[in-house]
Amino acid sequence: WLSCLLASACTIGFVVRLFFFISLFILASIETFSQSIDLMPMPSSVKLSAGGFRIDKQFAIAVKGDGDLRIYKEATRFFQRVAERTGIFFKSWIVDQNSRINVSGLSIETKRKGKVQLGEDESYELLVNEKEISLIAANDIGAIRGLETLFQLIESDQSGFFFQSATIKDSPRFSWRGLLISQPYHFMPMDVIKRTLDAMALVKMNVLHFYISDDQGYRIESKVYPRLHQVASDGQYFTHEQVREMIEYAHQRGIRVVPEIDVPGHSTAMIYAYPHLASIKRNYQLQDHWGVFDPTLDPTKESTYQFLDTLLTEVASLFPDEYFHIGGDENTGKDWKSNPDIVAFMKSNNLNSTLALQNYFNKRVQAILRKSGKKTIGWDEVLMKEMEAKEAKTHFEKGQYDKLIETDVPKDMVIQSWRGMEALLSSAKNGYKSILSKGYYIDLVQSAEYHYLNDPVPFNNDVIVPDSEANFDRFESDIINKIKQGEKLLSEAEEKLILGGEATMWTEHVTHETIDSRIWPRTAAIAERLWSPATLRNVDDMYRRMNKISVQLEWVGSTHIKNIDMMLRRMSGQANIESLRHVVDLLQPVQGYKRNAADNFTRFSPYTLLVDIAVPDQKAVREFSGLVNRYLRDRNPQQLDSLINRFHFWISNHGAIEIISGKNSLLGGLVQHSKHLGEISQLVIDYLKSSVKSKQGKEQILNKVKVYARPIDYCELKVLESIEKLIQNF
Amino acid sequence: WLSCLLASACTIGFVVRLFFFISLFILASIETFSQSIDLMPMPSSVKLSAGGFRIDKQFAIAVKGDGDLRIYKEATRFFQRVAERTGIFFKSWIVDQNSRINVSGLSIETKRKGKVQLGEDESYELLVNEKEISLIAANDIGAIRGLETLFQLIESDQSGFFFQSATIKDSPRFSWRGLLISQPYHFMPMDVIKRTLDAMALVKMNVLHFYISDDQGYRIESKVYPRLHQVASDGQYFTHEQVREMIEYAHQRGIRVVPEIDVPGHSTAMIYAYPHLASIKRNYQLQDHWGVFDPTLDPTKESTYQFLDTLLTEVASLFPDEYFHIGGDENTGKDWKSNPDIVAFMKSNNLNSTLALQNYFNKRVQAILRKSGKKTIGWDEVLMKEMEAKEAKTHFEKGQYDKLIETDVPKDMVIQSWRGMEALLSSAKNGYKSILSKGYYIDLVQSAEYHYLNDPVPFNNDVIVPDSEANFDRFESDIINKIKQGEKLLSEAEEKLILGGEATMWTEHVTHETIDSRIWPRTAAIAERLWSPATLRNVDDMYRRMNKISVQLEWVGSTHIKNIDMMLRRMSGQANIESLRHVVDLLQPVQGYKRNAADNFTRFSPYTLLVDIAVPDQKAVREFSGLVNRYLRDRNPQQLDSLINRFHFWISNHGAIEIISGKNSLLGGLVQHSKHLGEISQLVIDYLKSSVKSKQGKEQILNKVKVYARPIDYCELKVLESIEKLIQNF
Repeated sequence: WLSCLLASACTIGFVVRLFFFISLFILASIETFSQSIDLMPMPSSVKLSAGGFRIDKQFAIAVKGDGDLRIYKEATRFFQRVAERTGIFFKSWIVDQNSRINVSGLSIETKRKGKVQLGEDESYELLVNEKEISLIAANDIGAIRGLETLFQLIESDQSGFFFQSATIKDSPRFSWRGLLISQPYHFMPMDVIKRTLDAMALVKMNVLHFYISDDQGYRIESKVYPRLHQVASDGQYFTHEQVREMIEYAHQRGIRVVPEIDVPGHSTAMIYAYPHLASIKRNYQLQDHWGVFDPTLDPTKESTYQFLDTLLTEVASLFPDEYFHIGGDENTGKDWKSNPDIVAFMKSNNLNSTLALQNYFNKRVQAILRKSGKKTIGWDEVLMKEMEAKEAKTHFEKGQYDKLIETDVPKDMVIQSWRGMEALLSSAKNGYKSILSKGYYIDLVQSAEYHYLNDPVPFNNDVIVPDSEANFDRFESDIINKIKQGEKLLSEAEEKLILGGEATMWTEHVTHETIDSRIWPRTAAIAERLWSPATLRNVDDMYRRMNKISVQLEWVGSTHIKNIDMMLRRMSGQANIESLRHVVDLLQPVQGYKRNAADNFTRFSPYTLLVDIAVPDQKAVREFSGLVNRYLRDRNPQQLDSLINRFHFWISNHGAIEIISGKNSLLGGLVQHSKHLGEISQLVIDYLKSSVKSKQGKEQILNKVKVYARPIDYCELKVLESIEKLIQNF
Repeated sequence: WLSCLLASACTIGFVVRLFFFISLFILASIETFSQSIDLMPMPSSVKLSAGGFRIDKQFAIAVKGDGDLRIYKEATRFFQRVAERTGIFFKSWIVDQNSRINVSGLSIETKRKGKVQLGEDESYELLVNEKEISLIAANDIGAIRGLETLFQLIESDQSGFFFQSATIKDSPRFSWRGLLISQPYHFMPMDVIKRTLDAMALVKMNVLHFYISDDQGYRIESKVYPRLHQVASDGQYFTHEQVREMIEYAHQRGIRVVPEIDVPGHSTAMIYAYPHLASIKRNYQLQDHWGVFDPTLDPTKESTYQFLDTLLTEVASLFPDEYFHIGGDENTGKDWKSNPDIVAFMKSNNLNSTLALQNYFNKRVQAILRKSGKKTIGWDEVLMKEMEAKEAKTHFEKGQYDKLIETDVPKDMVIQSWRGMEALLSSAKNGYKSILSKGYYIDLVQSAEYHYLNDPVPFNNDVIVPDSEANFDRFESDIINKIKQGEKLLSEAEEKLILGGEATMWTEHVTHETIDSRIWPRTAAIAERLWSPATLRNVDDMYRRMNKISVQLEWVGSTHIKNIDMMLRRMSGQANIESLRHVVDLLQPVQGYKRNAADNFTRFSPYTLLVDIAVPDQKAVREFSGLVNRYLRDRNPQQLDSLINRFHFWISNHGAIEIISGKNSLLGGLVQHSKHLGEISQLVIDYLKSSVKSKQGKEQILNKVKVYARPIDYCELKVLESIEKLIQNF
């Protein structure tokens, strides 16, 4: 409990400090009385006031107006969550048309039935004072958003629980606030999808992008082409009934479900099940490895389009959303060029490149889906002009993206940009609706700060990404410079074409056990970026609120916190993992595609390793960094003492680890990191306490920091950065 | 980490002690070299030997013989679990007909296809040495049981993982090793059922008793009577497809699924959906409270049997098992006696009591199910003779159960005894197959020890239940005395009629968040009682192994450990709950039906309270009790020091709790318990350290112990018992 006291003290300090700072960063449109606003995503306008609406067992909920029936079910679910949070035994609990407020309660009013579709009005107004709670929205979907805000207003004191008094007017900045979950790499069963939908609803996200098909598997039942799920899924797929169950669950929460069948590349699973679709005859197997592969549908045969017509019509009928994603990314073009018939087809149709051929293919697929009343979405590449991939790459690298755009693609197509801001801007300038995913690739395990500052419509005089993590944004310095120089990149009309963004949970390196900790809590920061005013960019306050939301996400089922200990217990083979946990909390998985490079990872390899237990953007790392920064600013001796205590703790914690780790080879990497930390801690203590600060002592620490910063077991000891900063500036 | 070191030390001491003791208790048929056997349930014959089979990436699995295809899927799942446990990247991972062992591996041989049905051979033989692993079984189900044993043989050392060398011959003592899950009270969705099936498979249980219908809801889809799921389920039910999915998942693991539709009582949900079934006309609603209610099907109308014929035929076709449970318990008879038509029917048919009428009803229902090829099961009452319930109760209380037995009930009916040993013995004596549930009511949150020592066929000279918990076994002292006097209660043939037992997870007071901690790990002790030799009755060794299995149950998805912290974070509203956890680990929910008595608990009230977070039979309580017992035995001053350290820890832990608990009224009970513990701890330290032990000091402690032992928030501070013992015997 020594550590616990330290941690408590540190948390308290953190909050106190935020109290102090909050006034500096507060939005113009947001006023406070003297309390921090704990909401996430932050509403467009909030005014908190003193006092609140006390919650007791008389509390009731009444619904007025003509909203969809789903509001009753969601209000009931809200009621249940309030009971669970407060432990109060309410007198009534089911909200239906007969529910009335007798003594005290929440009144919900909606004018019309909401439709779960792009562009639906999600605004609401929420008033809480000591006497009443009123939630007014144009439709039930807005009301559902408002219920989530209201839940976050629950506070407690010694006499019980209350909703904080507030006046809130809220509506989203972007209409498309999505999360992609890929099913082919590691299959995510229904319970993962449901708890993810609950968590999405909590932070007001409104699109689940359900990625069905890739080289590693095809994951929904097909009655028209049953070999797709029978042969190409390893038995891991959603039945039609389950697809409907998922969609109903999502719609109940005001969340759209957009399916993606990725064609013509990323199609090994389809080809494995139906080899006649292939551009090249070979012995196909499901891919177990990760990457970009050559198998591609043959775009020259009418039988391919007949197949797609039947299949996509079936899938389109399952998913009611007006949008259908056809993928279109990462076609290597190799299989097309290796097939003389396809090369001949290109010649006779005057298609000068594989990109041009893909363009032809896309138009055929769009025509098929239009028959089902669907608009299509595709990744960046679907907009690319007739030219060879290599030539295109040169343009792309030169920052001349505009030259790549194929302007005769039907204008109702939506472009999902994974290549970056340049692609996004170009498509908007050419009149295409777009959503941004570049910068929201949560599978790359970057910081929430990085995602948070990544804006689909960056405003003037600000920087899109923090430089430290911009290493793979090398093509975009031009744009960043233009923004810095205050150049207006898009007209107002063009800006409106940017519908929002999508976080992408590609599941190569996650299983049902770890997916939550890769999505949450960081995606809450993306959800706020897409919902809240563009001017809200205070990273410290975002983290403060994200810490609070993180715990609330658990209550709707997310396992992002609780699975850490479970996995540590498995790896260590023992029940008592406190000392191990203190080290894991300081480790972060290597970022970007570094883990992909290690090609021993496949669909079936273990994802129960140290790198799977460690989570991105560790709270304990941020807290230690805060301690260091505060000390360097204030130079307060007490702060120094608490830093030194922390170092002592790490030394003794390593002692505890040495006792229990002997018999388990799997703990090797963790023990190594712990040893390094203990060793550095001792050197730092000696240095900080020594009366003469020798240059040699400093160099010794900095050299060790450099060596120990290297990944072990795909994990980095992230506190070393702050230790380096402390020593450099001591 | 101070506490962590203490806990580690304590665990190590515990293991050392068990090493010492194990030879005293070891079964005649089990030999060891010098290592404890970590298996649960314990096989009927085990011989461990030094060394083991090293696991490396060459490891492969090959299957020979004519087993069902499910063995390939289970062997693949086993392979995946070994990868997850060991972190090894295996070269191959899918086990199919083509899988061969090239370098090293496991060879599985089965002679024939297993059938998932009562009485199937589940025996297997397992040989592990440094060169090979061989698993031989009559059929694939035996092989699946053997795979679970093999998984538990995984050990680790500094150079990696290995399967412990062993020679094992194993088969179950009882053929019916079940777990009942009731769906009407709190609905348990598919993911709960699936993870429970995985956990059952881990401890070799083989029957899921799926309880569908009661006063609070009807939980599967009905195509013939759709109002059952549409009106009487609150939208919480399994579709036919989901029922099939569950059964397939269970069969894959060699687990039967036996459905129960409880009639003629416990039927409010059916009557609410189809009021013409009722014995009495009234305004029916689903029950939200817990208990025994009067609504009962009308057994005099042919329309009732037509309804049941159509419905039960539909349900019977969904569940392939040859057994079908028709309930039959707790019919109050009141509604029958209040309806003059029913009373007239009884007269004209010479049925002298409501029990006789129910007997008539049962026969009709049995006839219906026999058409679908089903044998029926019922609770105790279905065997009861024509007499009034009150009269029967008198016989029952007098221990004259034999007089209650209705011997013309068809002999193919299986009796599930919830009333106790007497009912079980009587039905066996009268030629009925029986299973025992009395003593396995895990919803009553008793100790694993209690369940463990409760034997369906108690052997001579032993006691069925520890006296301390036998308070509601008041009718059975006769039987216990007979056993103590060495009387043989059943003939060998009669004994064979006792098929096994079933743990019952009635879900009144559990939700999907807490059900796992009510089932596990205690049910592992019941699983061992039903699988392993009757002579295995060493409670200390059972607990040692249960602690190990508990962690392994997590790996197949059980949330019984990880949800504790999650719920504490919700209740406290904060992320750091270490100090709170130290107190919760010492609290146990009130046992038996004490919580039912508090009638504020209903289907919708919060189950997120202290009593839901605290788990039965706390490990920390047992560990402290072990410390006290060892000190009282050895009187070693070092042991006394470590006890005193523990008391100091509780005092300071309470200090930490006071700091963080101020703002939250929900924490009241926990803080109170913590305060009591701190206060007692100080008194105990003073007493233990004082040179003169005053009688007054002792009395003061014992008086406080008495007061503080009372439940607060339905939780008891269980370490007080050991503290009392320490002071009494110091």
